[in-house]
Amino acid sequence: MRDAYHEELDSIGDSLVEMARLVGSAIGRATTAILDADLNLAESVIAGDQKIDDLQHDLEARAIALLARQQPVATDLRIVVTSLRMSADLERSGDLAKHVAKQARLRFPDSPVPRDLHATLLEMGQLAQRLMAKAAEVIITKDVDLALQLETDDDEMDLLHRTLFQHLMDDRWKHGVETAVDVTLLGRYYERFADHAVSVANRVVYLVTGEHADDIQTPGVPVEGV
Amino acid sequence: MRDAYHEELDSIGDSLVEMARLVGSAIGRATTAILDADLNLAESVIAGDQKIDDLQHDLEARAIALLARQQPVATDLRIVVTSLRMSADLERSGDLAKHVAKQARLRFPDSPVPRDLHATLLEMGQLAQRLMAKAAEVIITKDVDLALQLETDDDEMDLLHRTLFQHLMDDRWKHGVETAVDVTLLGRYYERFADHAVSVANRVVYLVTGEHADDIQTPGVPVEGV
Repeated sequence: MRDAYHEELDSIGDSLVEMARLVGSAIGRATTAILDADLNLAESVIAGDQKIDDLQHDLEARAIALLARQQPVATDLRIVVTSLRMSADLERSGDLAKHVAKQARLRFPDSPVPRDLHATLLEMGQLAQRLMAKAAEVIITKDVDLALQLETDDDEMDLLHRTLFQHLMDDRWKHGVETAVDVTLLGRYYERFADHAVSVANRVVYLVTGEHADDIQTPGVPVEGV
Repeated sequence: MRDAYHEELDSIGDSLVEMARLVGSAIGRATTAILDADLNLAESVIAGDQKIDDLQHDLEARAIALLARQQPVATDLRIVVTSLRMSADLERSGDLAKHVAKQARLRFPDSPVPRDLHATLLEMGQLAQRLMAKAAEVIITKDVDLALQLETDDDEMDLLHRTLFQHLMDDRWKHGVETAVDVTLLGRYYERFADHAVSVANRVVYLVTGEHADDIQTPGVPVEGV
């Protein structure tokens, strides 16, 4: 059996996973909302962000209470401080999902995204959701290899973002300036969302290894043999 | 004389002020760089961001060491945890200044901003710089009234941001899609920069009063008499 202290530490971890789950669901639904011009879905994402914010406030209060009461040192201290940072990343990711949903609401009953970019936006949304699901798994498993995979996924997101920009910058762009602005902002939201998911995973890497993810060899170049 | 512990706490505060100073200077120079298409200035902002990142890493390490060694409780604990968050806000603000500068570098020898929007962009840049200067002053003075002023300044930023969007959405927009994309991103960077400055000030308010800034009456409606 675990003592009350470690139970509290675990419950902070559980809250982080719950936040990541909610945020991943939010970006998935927000993506559907913009592509299908689904106002109800958009509203549900916008309203649901409050729960993510509440979870963060609650997590912060518990983390600070834990610091005050238990005065952890060494690894435990780093876990608590890192959890505070991860919760900030997740809260911000929730905001970004909300921004995507708000764009759907703003342009309803139209979609803010022109048809020929739906596939790219769908890929960005799905990738964002996968990144957050992996980040949640990294929090649970502390799997450093999986954490490093997120960097590769993030490269893919950058590629999709560049594809989007190529469309925007193409002389044949025929959707007008308003749509260009919408697509620019949406692209930015997904890119930032992915950054935060990577950041969450990297913070776990730092906790486990004491090294920043950038300094660790990526899975593409295995450190050990087969 | 102060003891070593409180000296260390003070030195963390000094680092925050130094970060805010650097970040405020960075957004000012980045704004000049985009308006004057000044490549050297843009490069100096981009290179200078490393120093801001280094300051943050150093501050974090000292804050965590302080938590481990001194195990502060109550107010002191809140100060250290809040300092960690403020440093994250400031580091991110530095990134945003760098993004502005990169936009200048990308479009050199042109300015990414069309002539008829220079005045608006200049106002946004100056306001961003003033917001950060006030945030630094709030860190130093713990002046709650001044902190609440930042909300008003931020409203002004939102107004400028809306002005920018009105230009973009105007049927008479004649600068093409590429420029629309640039201006959209720049507007977003300034808006986020302002948000972070407000966030820094609000965290000081919370430290001083134990209340969130939203729950405090604004200076426009004085709580006490004249």
